[in-house]
Amino acid sequence: MIIIMKHKASENQIEAVRIRIEKMGCKIHLSQGEEQTILGVIGDVRLVDDEQIGRMDGVDRLVRILRPFKLSSREFHPKDTVIKVGKIKIGGNQIVVMSGPCAVESREQLMETALAVKNAGAHLLRGGAFKPRSSPYSFQGLGEEGLRLLAEARELTGLPVVTEVMEPQMVPMVAEYADVIQIGTRNMQNYSLLQAVGKIKHPILLKRGMMSTIEELLMSAEYILSNGNENVMLCERGIRTFEPYTRNTLDISAVPVLKQLSHLPVIVDPSHATGKWDLVDPVSRASIAAGADGLIIEVHPRPEEAMSDGAQSLKPEKFKNLMIALKPIAEAVGRSL
Amino acid sequence: MIIIMKHKASENQIEAVRIRIEKMGCKIHLSQGEEQTILGVIGDVRLVDDEQIGRMDGVDRLVRILRPFKLSSREFHPKDTVIKVGKIKIGGNQIVVMSGPCAVESREQLMETALAVKNAGAHLLRGGAFKPRSSPYSFQGLGEEGLRLLAEARELTGLPVVTEVMEPQMVPMVAEYADVIQIGTRNMQNYSLLQAVGKIKHPILLKRGMMSTIEELLMSAEYILSNGNENVMLCERGIRTFEPYTRNTLDISAVPVLKQLSHLPVIVDPSHATGKWDLVDPVSRASIAAGADGLIIEVHPRPEEAMSDGAQSLKPEKFKNLMIALKPIAEAVGRSL
Amino acid sequence: MIIIMKHKASENQIEAVRIRIEKMGCKIHLSQGEEQTILGVIGDVRLVDDEQIGRMDGVDRLVRILRPFKLSSREFHPKDTVIKVGKIKIGGNQIVVMSGPCAVESREQLMETALAVKNAGAHLLRGGAFKPRSSPYSFQGLGEEGLRLLAEARELTGLPVVTEVMEPQMVPMVAEYADVIQIGTRNMQNYSLLQAVGKIKHPILLKRGMMSTIEELLMSAEYILSNGNENVMLCERGIRTFEPYTRNTLDISAVPVLKQLSHLPVIVDPSHATGKWDLVDPVSRASIAAGADGLIIEVHPRPEEAMSDGAQSLKPEKFKNLMIALKPIAEAVGRSL
Amino acid sequence: MIIIMKHKASENQIEAVRIRIEKMGCKIHLSQGEEQTILGVIGDVRLVDDEQIGRMDGVDRLVRILRPFKLSSREFHPKDTVIKVGKIKIGGNQIVVMSGPCAVESREQLMETALAVKNAGAHLLRGGAFKPRSSPYSFQGLGEEGLRLLAEARELTGLPVVTEVMEPQMVPMVAEYADVIQIGTRNMQNYSLLQAVGKIKHPILLKRGMMSTIEELLMSAEYILSNGNENVMLCERGIRTFEPYTRNTLDISAVPVLKQLSHLPVIVDPSHATGKWDLVDPVSRASIAAGADGLIIEVHPRPEEAMSDGAQSLKPEKFKNLMIALKPIAEAVGRSL
Repeated sequence: MIIIMKHKASENQIEAVRIRIEKMGCKIHLSQGEEQTILGVIGDVRLVDDEQIGRMDGVDRLVRILRPFKLSSREFHPKDTVIKVGKIKIGGNQIVVMSGPCAVESREQLMETALAVKNAGAHLLRGGAFKPRSSPYSFQGLGEEGLRLLAEARELTGLPVVTEVMEPQMVPMVAEYADVIQIGTRNMQNYSLLQAVGKIKHPILLKRGMMSTIEELLMSAEYILSNGNENVMLCERGIRTFEPYTRNTLDISAVPVLKQLSHLPVIVDPSHATGKWDLVDPVSRASIAAGADGLIIEVHPRPEEAMSDGAQSLKPEKFKNLMIALKPIAEAVGRSL
Repeated sequence: MIIIMKHKASENQIEAVRIRIEKMGCKIHLSQGEEQTILGVIGDVRLVDDEQIGRMDGVDRLVRILRPFKLSSREFHPKDTVIKVGKIKIGGNQIVVMSGPCAVESREQLMETALAVKNAGAHLLRGGAFKPRSSPYSFQGLGEEGLRLLAEARELTGLPVVTEVMEPQMVPMVAEYADVIQIGTRNMQNYSLLQAVGKIKHPILLKRGMMSTIEELLMSAEYILSNGNENVMLCERGIRTFEPYTRNTLDISAVPVLKQLSHLPVIVDPSHATGKWDLVDPVSRASIAAGADGLIIEVHPRPEEAMSDGAQSLKPEKFKNLMIALKPIAEAVGRSL
Repeated sequence: MIIIMKHKASENQIEAVRIRIEKMGCKIHLSQGEEQTILGVIGDVRLVDDEQIGRMDGVDRLVRILRPFKLSSREFHPKDTVIKVGKIKIGGNQIVVMSGPCAVESREQLMETALAVKNAGAHLLRGGAFKPRSSPYSFQGLGEEGLRLLAEARELTGLPVVTEVMEPQMVPMVAEYADVIQIGTRNMQNYSLLQAVGKIKHPILLKRGMMSTIEELLMSAEYILSNGNENVMLCERGIRTFEPYTRNTLDISAVPVLKQLSHLPVIVDPSHATGKWDLVDPVSRASIAAGADGLIIEVHPRPEEAMSDGAQSLKPEKFKNLMIALKPIAEAVGRSL
Repeated sequence: MIIIMKHKASENQIEAVRIRIEKMGCKIHLSQGEEQTILGVIGDVRLVDDEQIGRMDGVDRLVRILRPFKLSSREFHPKDTVIKVGKIKIGGNQIVVMSGPCAVESREQLMETALAVKNAGAHLLRGGAFKPRSSPYSFQGLGEEGLRLLAEARELTGLPVVTEVMEPQMVPMVAEYADVIQIGTRNMQNYSLLQAVGKIKHPILLKRGMMSTIEELLMSAEYILSNGNENVMLCERGIRTFEPYTRNTLDISAVPVLKQLSHLPVIVDPSHATGKWDLVDPVSRASIAAGADGLIIEVHPRPEEAMSDGAQSLKPEKFKNLMIALKPIAEAVGRSL
């Protein structure tokens, strides 16, 4: 960390900064130029509070040299994390596809979809039992009944189940039924919830907030990791921009950036990113070409009857074709599907 | 609601839409032009699921004529809601100022600040006991001890207390100490939390998500109102944009827009919107001139020692000057301070 | 086009709208519901001015059924446009790669780069002679001398040349030297310039404004096409968002969206989109997988000495490896490179 | 300027940076810590090319201490610039209001509006003769005929005239008729145009690009100032965000920020910022309260017939009321109107 003093900072001001920094357990290395004085901070700079120092008299700016995340960083943990869910390995050579309906609506709908995605080659079954909806008047999911149906679908197909949890006290119940627990985009900075899933051992699929930076996503992963759960997958699902044509704007560069900065597996959600079923195919191809470790894709047997997100769900037939189309892309980047 | 059919929609497709709409409890009024067919939906269109209909064969687009919120809308409730907190009325002629430290750090810091803001003319005392922080390594607040200190500061100054709640199961405890309960920007779409505060009677200060539209803010208010709590204040606190100079970009137009669309009081948070103490003064003036019913402003006796948000906190002296400067602006728009 | 009248619109107001619409050369089809009246506009609705009608008393909203662009739309022109530049076909089965330095700096630098990209398999040579720079104190390009060097490099390598034009009166001079003329991101809505390049026959590479929607890009293409030049390529080069890690955010979904909405070839610029050379490879792969017809990539023999955009330029060796890596991706989507 | 070397930078790499910096005419001050080496650059750091240095082996990052603009900065020129247009002073104690139609449509429309805004107390007359429109099929303005009508309206009312120029070669013609020349939002980075208006002496109203940062706006002002024209006004007119309710999002904080960073007068355009006439009043009040030196407001006698931007134009009666309402706000911030 570097502290840049103002042009006319006095010796007293510099001395006050030195004292404060030393109280925080670090040391100062002084570099006095003709026009400005720069203080290099030596020691465990994570102990230094930027805002406190930044407000001191005579201080112009602070520059952090090191990134604020640690457990999620590749620097700290160079080797790729590979997460096991039953026999499936996420983050290894194989591209993993999670698929199923946005919301569990009925036994019939779920079993039909589960069998279809299994048959098309999906590796995990996704489905929402608790649905966060912007309107209090919209369908909010089947709740625990939905979880039971997901467990039943797992029995039927052998596919492990991914489902979302929305509040800390629900974590034990959801964990009882699910194999992978999803934190949704609106909860990426719900710190109580992050802490709660940090205390279990289930793999967590952490979705990027639709208006969160890459660094904030890694800081949220840090909450889970620092509570003891090392099984975190990062999910890019589109960010909010001024472009109205798609529901969100998929930040495709985030895939290689996350792979550079972190050792955690990276999953892409082309369904929520685009909001349009006919863009799911090209965007899925692009995601794998960019280095994603997996995809999470919405499939519904009759999208026009879906109680949530019908516009972005693929029909089983289209999903099957997509799985076939993705295979050569995976191979072109040296991976399997 | 209007359903616009595709250019070449068949009669069978139109018929299928009609049947689906009637199942949902509404009726169709057909308008067949040379180039396109338009279906007007008559009845309680809130029962119609846009996504289901939008995915049907032959359907091009849906257009909703009515807004999706109701209890929070001025159309439904033309008269301004005025919320009473002790003797203070929020949403009436008087501009209300809530002030205090970002986080409660110690008894000394809180009492000193509380007395200073009381002395400067603030109407409520704000202070965080539970702090949502992007880093798990940052100070997270004093917890229940912070709540106790806030209650003590209320005793000392007579100022009602505003403080944040972060998870549903904490609502009863926070409600025991606080007069007004704040939902923070990262929790605006934490629906479990919205439902929980909808079931109590305390006034709620609902902060706009930094990533949320005005309509989404009103939909989140709708969650609280539809659970039975009518005492909701809306808080504009800046949105995330590409401009890096300020922490967020205050959406000043949101103030008159919210006053047009809704009957709920509108509060502005210039401290979080700008992130810089020297912008708090001009932005506070602008907010009152634009029609805000109140302000929430961070004050700290020694900002350079603040454990959170020091860069945007005013010193008590500056806050006092601001209160004096705001008076003529309030009068210029026909209000008092 | 549909005109939605307000809830309580009077018959006189409806009649006034009818008269205005008929003056504009269209007709009205009235659909009177219980709660609202809807007017369908029949005829050439491009003659109707939305803003005029939208401001009339009693009018709530207008909804356009047809898109505002025509010559650039696939509806109007279903077959892909294939643009010939010498023997190169852009928009056909082959992926086309344009490569070279950001700015022409010297004969030595340009010839060295031109030979290197030719050798690696690039199809066109890019290079800026006039450089738009945000600071008046930065290097602004070699001007006409740069154009002469580009022509010389074409002689040397046989590669057609792409270069940018910045003002209408420079179009004839740039057209004399260049094979393809680029309109930069800051000039996407410089309508005088669009009209000027609409009057020549050279292929135009139209870059999306960093602040522009997909629809606005197509409207700007419409300016060129409606002036008589049918040889327009659209270039996605990243949009401005709140994410600071990359220079811009590549809107990968824009690739398939543009291919759906328009018949014009789509090129991606991974260098400007990311601003970081080590992201150019994964983002290039993703672009081809998403369906792009070509790439424009910055290469510099010594990026650390580049006078512009060194941070995002590939060294020739890296570019060569990229070209090899892209081949199997192109084949996986049924194309050649 | 500070150069932060990578953790493991070698002595050779540090030496290479030193040599390069010295070639650029600056010197290096070395500060070698245990974990990192920091190089302070001494001398005229504007000569140093960030990108070149940033790409050198062993370099981690560069941090500029000084801002990249100079002539427009308050540091360089502490006293407020006051621009005279006839008897009007812009940037002094008086708030200046520029008003008139978006586009000049006819003699009748312009004279009627000019008299009305003069009568209501406006200080300058605005009106577009050349209109940048996103569609090539929309009304593009009356051209030189529009300029002649503006000059005639000046004769009639005594109000100086503000109008836009769109291309470099039109500058002399527009300058012949206009008193103040406007650079529109889409041309803020049209550097040829900025240079052209930098060579005349007319006051320039430079509008912020709808997706440009505050720093970029000041850099564009720098283009004009460095070409010799010191009469530049900065105009905040809203930026593009994800919020769809208003046409743009007025960045109200930009007003005090620009006043802090620069000595140039700051004007706000509430009409384009909001796109809705009924928001012009509250947003105008807010702008003055925030410290703006003036406003530019669209007025049309019959907005429902306006050929451009009718939705955001005030009727003369409303404009008159607004001028009355603004007076006490101006006084509340110690200014006159």
